[in-house]
Amino acid sequence: MGKIFNERTSVEVALTLFLEQISPLRASEEVRLEASVGRVLAGAVLAGRNVPHYRRSAMDGYAVRASDTQGASPANPVLLELSDRVEEGSCAWIHTGGPVPEEADAVLMVEDTVTTGDLVEIRAQVYPGRNVGGIGEDMKVGDLIFEKGHMLRPCDAAVLASLGFEKVPVLRKPLVAVIPTGDELVSRDKVREVPPPGTVLETNGLMAGLYVEQWGGIPRYSEIIPDDPLKLKEALEVNLDADMILISGGTSVGKRDHAPEALEGLGKLLVRGVGAVPGKPTTLGIINDVPVACLPGYPVAGLVALYFFVRAGLRKLAGRPSEIPEPVLKRRLAAKVSSKIGYVNFVRVVLEGDSVRPLMGAGAGVLSSVAKADGFLLVPENVEGYEPGDEVDVFLME
Amino acid sequence: MGKIFNERTSVEVALTLFLEQISPLRASEEVRLEASVGRVLAGAVLAGRNVPHYRRSAMDGYAVRASDTQGASPANPVLLELSDRVEEGSCAWIHTGGPVPEEADAVLMVEDTVTTGDLVEIRAQVYPGRNVGGIGEDMKVGDLIFEKGHMLRPCDAAVLASLGFEKVPVLRKPLVAVIPTGDELVSRDKVREVPPPGTVLETNGLMAGLYVEQWGGIPRYSEIIPDDPLKLKEALEVNLDADMILISGGTSVGKRDHAPEALEGLGKLLVRGVGAVPGKPTTLGIINDVPVACLPGYPVAGLVALYFFVRAGLRKLAGRPSEIPEPVLKRRLAAKVSSKIGYVNFVRVVLEGDSVRPLMGAGAGVLSSVAKADGFLLVPENVEGYEPGDEVDVFLME
Repeated sequence: MGKIFNERTSVEVALTLFLEQISPLRASEEVRLEASVGRVLAGAVLAGRNVPHYRRSAMDGYAVRASDTQGASPANPVLLELSDRVEEGSCAWIHTGGPVPEEADAVLMVEDTVTTGDLVEIRAQVYPGRNVGGIGEDMKVGDLIFEKGHMLRPCDAAVLASLGFEKVPVLRKPLVAVIPTGDELVSRDKVREVPPPGTVLETNGLMAGLYVEQWGGIPRYSEIIPDDPLKLKEALEVNLDADMILISGGTSVGKRDHAPEALEGLGKLLVRGVGAVPGKPTTLGIINDVPVACLPGYPVAGLVALYFFVRAGLRKLAGRPSEIPEPVLKRRLAAKVSSKIGYVNFVRVVLEGDSVRPLMGAGAGVLSSVAKADGFLLVPENVEGYEPGDEVDVFLME
Repeated sequence: MGKIFNERTSVEVALTLFLEQISPLRASEEVRLEASVGRVLAGAVLAGRNVPHYRRSAMDGYAVRASDTQGASPANPVLLELSDRVEEGSCAWIHTGGPVPEEADAVLMVEDTVTTGDLVEIRAQVYPGRNVGGIGEDMKVGDLIFEKGHMLRPCDAAVLASLGFEKVPVLRKPLVAVIPTGDELVSRDKVREVPPPGTVLETNGLMAGLYVEQWGGIPRYSEIIPDDPLKLKEALEVNLDADMILISGGTSVGKRDHAPEALEGLGKLLVRGVGAVPGKPTTLGIINDVPVACLPGYPVAGLVALYFFVRAGLRKLAGRPSEIPEPVLKRRLAAKVSSKIGYVNFVRVVLEGDSVRPLMGAGAGVLSSVAKADGFLLVPENVEGYEPGDEVDVFLME
């Protein structure tokens, strides 16, 4: 009790230790294309059809035999008969997307023709295949269209639709148990008035659950667990059917902080205390195959633990591609940022024109500082801080 | 028929003309905090409660009267009696988040004390207010917490929860009518086999609708409208209850392209043809107060029109903040990109380590090129292209 952490794992090492324990879910389910955006493909998708499935005109114009147009020019046009069929000496009107008649092998754009009655003056020469989309030119039967693990976007749903898919197999969403703990917590469902002094409405669990949804998981909210080692152990055991467990609170080193011990008692403690400010008391572990993250009770510290560990863990569980980097805004700092060596500093910032201003003096307990922030920057553990005018990478707050 | 566009509006001017006609929706609805993420606040939010609502200890330690600790040091400790109440000469145990007794004005961290039985040796001096979070320190009654138009994130939902909100008023989502047109189109709901040559499954409308959802709107899919000016006019009229109308197809200059005329007949044509490759045939207008975008039928051209105009229009309709810039990836080009002066070129790219490779030779009809793309870059209209090694801004494809 009352000791500062004797362990402190760097954020990078802690993340590696945590992710090592996590495997992407294997279970899949079928979803309709209309509900497929954001989901991750459970297997590779091969084209089962040719797209286009017929020889398609790329232009409004005339379907011709290319050989009939040889030598044609505005000064030296070739005359073809307008017909419904294409044979030597005849051509047929065709619109963009229309099927090119079997005997034709090219389409002449309408701008290169003059039509008078049943005669079409051909004023340009075309080569075979010109303006004709061949069968399977876009996608051929057997082509690999998407790899397993691809996260679907609206344009991808359209590709799948064009291949005749109605549903598509995607990975199941990870189920994440969210367990708020603390004698001081009062459920928002039960109390609508200001609770008595010394008690607060439970809000960290809500925040964790909503980030879980944002990052591709399904939160399952547990009732509030008091600061009682046995009750916490029970709550963990009951939730071992989940794909991940988040305990919010009870992870510091006070008399009432039982989360790390409960975790250690049932499974394996991987990390107790990380080099992050805020976020130091973050504790990570594993019970059977279920990764467990104990989030600090201070709301901003909890947010940092969510961003650093839960987000990455969930994305791995959900099979989301991790190789695509995070886009950032490059911005100049409007004010100095100080940071403690040995800790990654999570600095909330506000965008101000072409620069960013750090929100100073906002402790880990001040969630309103997050409400004010547009994004955050990270000061690495070996950097003492930044000066005004330094260029930094800013991540938008999700 | 068969003419190239005699108008061509630059993307920038076209967007300005379109957005000028669009006002954010005013209608609002209440949603539960659990469903509030991504929604836009219909009004400013003021704090109706103080957070914290009691004097809160920031530490595990002892609540004291600061004056009792004057001069205390490890060499020269002050002895206080351990009690349940704080008076001159006594102190009380308190945990993080606990209510500081009325008579106390500071909390001494436990690390600066040694406790023996009922006596606490105070080994440091504290000033009044130390480690005590005052009432309303985070948020005070009447404080402006969020401005109207703020888009809610999970952390914001937690802030609102801590203020006692159960529901929150947000702007209604824009209703967007999606009208696919074209004699060649076949509904995916009706045909599951490969359709006959000359006909294709309707997929552009699905893509448009899914992007509408992604960008905060609610798509309402219309049945497929044939290339018949009267039918198209009817379809527009029937959908004038929507907040925006998208017509997919029928916007080029062929015999069967009636969308611009239908739009002009009922309302006002703002833009016919834009300086974008792909995407040239994009047509924009307004009927009564309903913005209408006619999307080219070539899927990639349709995608570009969605990205350039519909996305911005929807975000404005939905009241989403436009001042927050898009984050990008700065990458070097792995290959040359050529572009036509006078047109913004939408170049699909694949990430390859620290560089990006443009997907070349992928026409506007080749939707599979989008499936392969991780993102895109834009070549401005006054730039002829980029050389290998040039640094470019890459946007991830949503």
